[in-house]
Amino acid sequence: MGLEKSILENAPVAIDQDQIWGVGIIPPDFHPDEIVDGYGCVLMPAFFNVHTHAAMTLERGWAEDLAFEDWLNKKIWVAESALEEEDIYWGASLAAVEMIQSGIVGFADHYFWMDQVARVVEDCGMKALLAWCHFGNGVDQELGKKSFEDTISFVERWKNGAGGRIKTSMGPHSTYMDPPDVLQNFAREALRLGVGAHIHLSESLEQVQNSRKNFGKTPVAHLDELGLLCLPEPTIVAHCNVLETEDYELLSRNSVFVAHTPKTYMKLAMDMPLVEKMHQQGIRVALGTDGPASNSDFNMWEMMRLTGLCQKFIHHDPTVMDRTSLVEMATRISATAMGFSDSGIIQVGNKADLILVDTSSPHMIPRHDLVAGLVYSGQPGDVRAVWCDGVCLYKNGNFLTLDYERICYEAEKRAFRLTGKEMKNMRTYNA
Amino acid sequence: MGLEKSILENAPVAIDQDQIWGVGIIPPDFHPDEIVDGYGCVLMPAFFNVHTHAAMTLERGWAEDLAFEDWLNKKIWVAESALEEEDIYWGASLAAVEMIQSGIVGFADHYFWMDQVARVVEDCGMKALLAWCHFGNGVDQELGKKSFEDTISFVERWKNGAGGRIKTSMGPHSTYMDPPDVLQNFAREALRLGVGAHIHLSESLEQVQNSRKNFGKTPVAHLDELGLLCLPEPTIVAHCNVLETEDYELLSRNSVFVAHTPKTYMKLAMDMPLVEKMHQQGIRVALGTDGPASNSDFNMWEMMRLTGLCQKFIHHDPTVMDRTSLVEMATRISATAMGFSDSGIIQVGNKADLILVDTSSPHMIPRHDLVAGLVYSGQPGDVRAVWCDGVCLYKNGNFLTLDYERICYEAEKRAFRLTGKEMKNMRTYNA
Repeated sequence: MGLEKSILENAPVAIDQDQIWGVGIIPPDFHPDEIVDGYGCVLMPAFFNVHTHAAMTLERGWAEDLAFEDWLNKKIWVAESALEEEDIYWGASLAAVEMIQSGIVGFADHYFWMDQVARVVEDCGMKALLAWCHFGNGVDQELGKKSFEDTISFVERWKNGAGGRIKTSMGPHSTYMDPPDVLQNFAREALRLGVGAHIHLSESLEQVQNSRKNFGKTPVAHLDELGLLCLPEPTIVAHCNVLETEDYELLSRNSVFVAHTPKTYMKLAMDMPLVEKMHQQGIRVALGTDGPASNSDFNMWEMMRLTGLCQKFIHHDPTVMDRTSLVEMATRISATAMGFSDSGIIQVGNKADLILVDTSSPHMIPRHDLVAGLVYSGQPGDVRAVWCDGVCLYKNGNFLTLDYERICYEAEKRAFRLTGKEMKNMRTYNA
Repeated sequence: MGLEKSILENAPVAIDQDQIWGVGIIPPDFHPDEIVDGYGCVLMPAFFNVHTHAAMTLERGWAEDLAFEDWLNKKIWVAESALEEEDIYWGASLAAVEMIQSGIVGFADHYFWMDQVARVVEDCGMKALLAWCHFGNGVDQELGKKSFEDTISFVERWKNGAGGRIKTSMGPHSTYMDPPDVLQNFAREALRLGVGAHIHLSESLEQVQNSRKNFGKTPVAHLDELGLLCLPEPTIVAHCNVLETEDYELLSRNSVFVAHTPKTYMKLAMDMPLVEKMHQQGIRVALGTDGPASNSDFNMWEMMRLTGLCQKFIHHDPTVMDRTSLVEMATRISATAMGFSDSGIIQVGNKADLILVDTSSPHMIPRHDLVAGLVYSGQPGDVRAVWCDGVCLYKNGNFLTLDYERICYEAEKRAFRLTGKEMKNMRTYNA
């Protein structure tokens, strides 16, 4: 089933508890506590952000227009070395504020001190698939002072947490950071606990060449051999910028979703994955923002748009990656990748993960084609209301579960501490 | 002078009539009628949109995900053939609403029935460089029923119109539509009237090959030979997707600005101009949105961002096209290209063409780097107030010179008439 019934312009929808109870026709015995008028708006499935590092909001704008090595070594890792555990709570809270405001209700997070991120999800009412990132090469002790076993106990502790809104998975960093025995241990634990994994994969030609040298095979084949592509729940592999012919086949026949985050690839001048080719080969591709240290923000409108624009551009064909497929990648497919397969389509029995989007703003007029308006002109500011599991998180500019002003203040204070900048309410900027 | 003094976070600015009267220190004898509190915001130069076809808002979303030939022949020209003169007023008014809301105060327009666009500029308080598009091959009579002489009389009629807010220029469509003698006539008239020109140039390899075949030279060299690159005011050449080595030299030593509109290039899968190379060769590049039939909207925030992201991507170098140069291209350089060289920098004596931008929203926090926040996360919704020639056009969501609701209604009604769609307030959409 495609987008039919999923972008609604003139249809009542009834929500009962956390579920969609009626679409189109509401039986007379349904007596709502509240009626929301969607005049001038469409109701559509909320976005799911399939790959991010939420707390890296603290480093947003801290490392710009730099070569990758400088970006990582001279800036990002320097700031991260000053992180304290509670910083994660405020950094992830800032991410939650921005995600909710732009229509995202779920995110797959991959970072450290993940109990703090779980607390944020509990507090703000979103959904998440959480993985505690583990390098397995001795660096972990410096960062989070957590062992492999600690990250596994996190998976057990928060599995089905927050009333089922939290899911967990294994969080190996990558095939180039984690040694083979550590990756195998992750696969074993995933099978034991009935979860999936979330890992960075095949991001550059250099990584592919090194993998061939060190392991005699591509990163994808290496991961497959170690058992991480066939787990009880899907494996999310971010970013697959460089794939060889055999890799497409391996990714398509396993329980895998590729996380596609195009703004990072452009900003850091990485290779662009061939999403159109992945689709042709039957690979499932879901959309994410990546962390705000590379992407800058959590704007799934822009991710849909950039995915479409980039694939049209690199394939020299304006007909590839049509607008409907882009909405599906940002909603149903991303939700399914994170284990929330009862979301992403507006139908009776599904979870009420919905957003109300204003289509009466100048940039959407005339409404010749609503999906074109949403994909090619849509902005976070068009989102009027957001529901997750039937609970309203945001309406008409008001956050109903979060203290937005305090979060911005705390996050900025901590971000400036990380980077040695003084906190001032008023500053003068000189370029 | 670069961006110094041009993105102000903690500095008072005094406006007297249409000019900036003081920056940083306001003398005690300045007694303002009104004080605007910019707490949590930055004040920066307003955007100038260097290439568009404003009234094509009417075809926004009407031709999507199509091959270029189908887009043009089966959709755009069909709808355009049903255009009536007053449609242009409402289509351009809708464009004005959207441009003002997103921080644009000036636009270089290239279309038909341009008296209507001039009326819009007069009414809404923006600035514009207006050119009446002319094919010179007989098609014009069908469309606007206007001769070459009519388009020249438009240039004279509106030159320095609306108190100097309107400038005019010659509007040949392109080297592939306009025969050489028509282009020469445009050059002659431009010299006589002391104006520049605005033309499409070198958009594809096919155009370059045909030009070599028909005229023995590239489109750029052809235009240079006919005298259109060296006029009393700058010539705006859109889009220069495909240039040969000699073209760079010709463009750099003439009074020319290249109009760069990256979203169109990606959406229609055209070649991406090498802006970084143009800069290295001393060519001035200004930013525009192009018309909304190809681009979809008037979002200069996105144009800055896409320009940077695309150049980093195609050059495989994240350090090219830094964020400061992107702001300059969208403000000072675009304003200068349109003949408004007393705009684009916040300094005493310049015109008060300014925007107040909120930097306290979640997607701008923490403010490690204000320019990075504006360029990589900025959205139209961040614009709090807009001034053009010292007159406030928009503040806190209110349009002070335009009837926004009536314009959206009239434009949508006319757009649906063009495309044969029934106007209904409530419709059901099925993808």
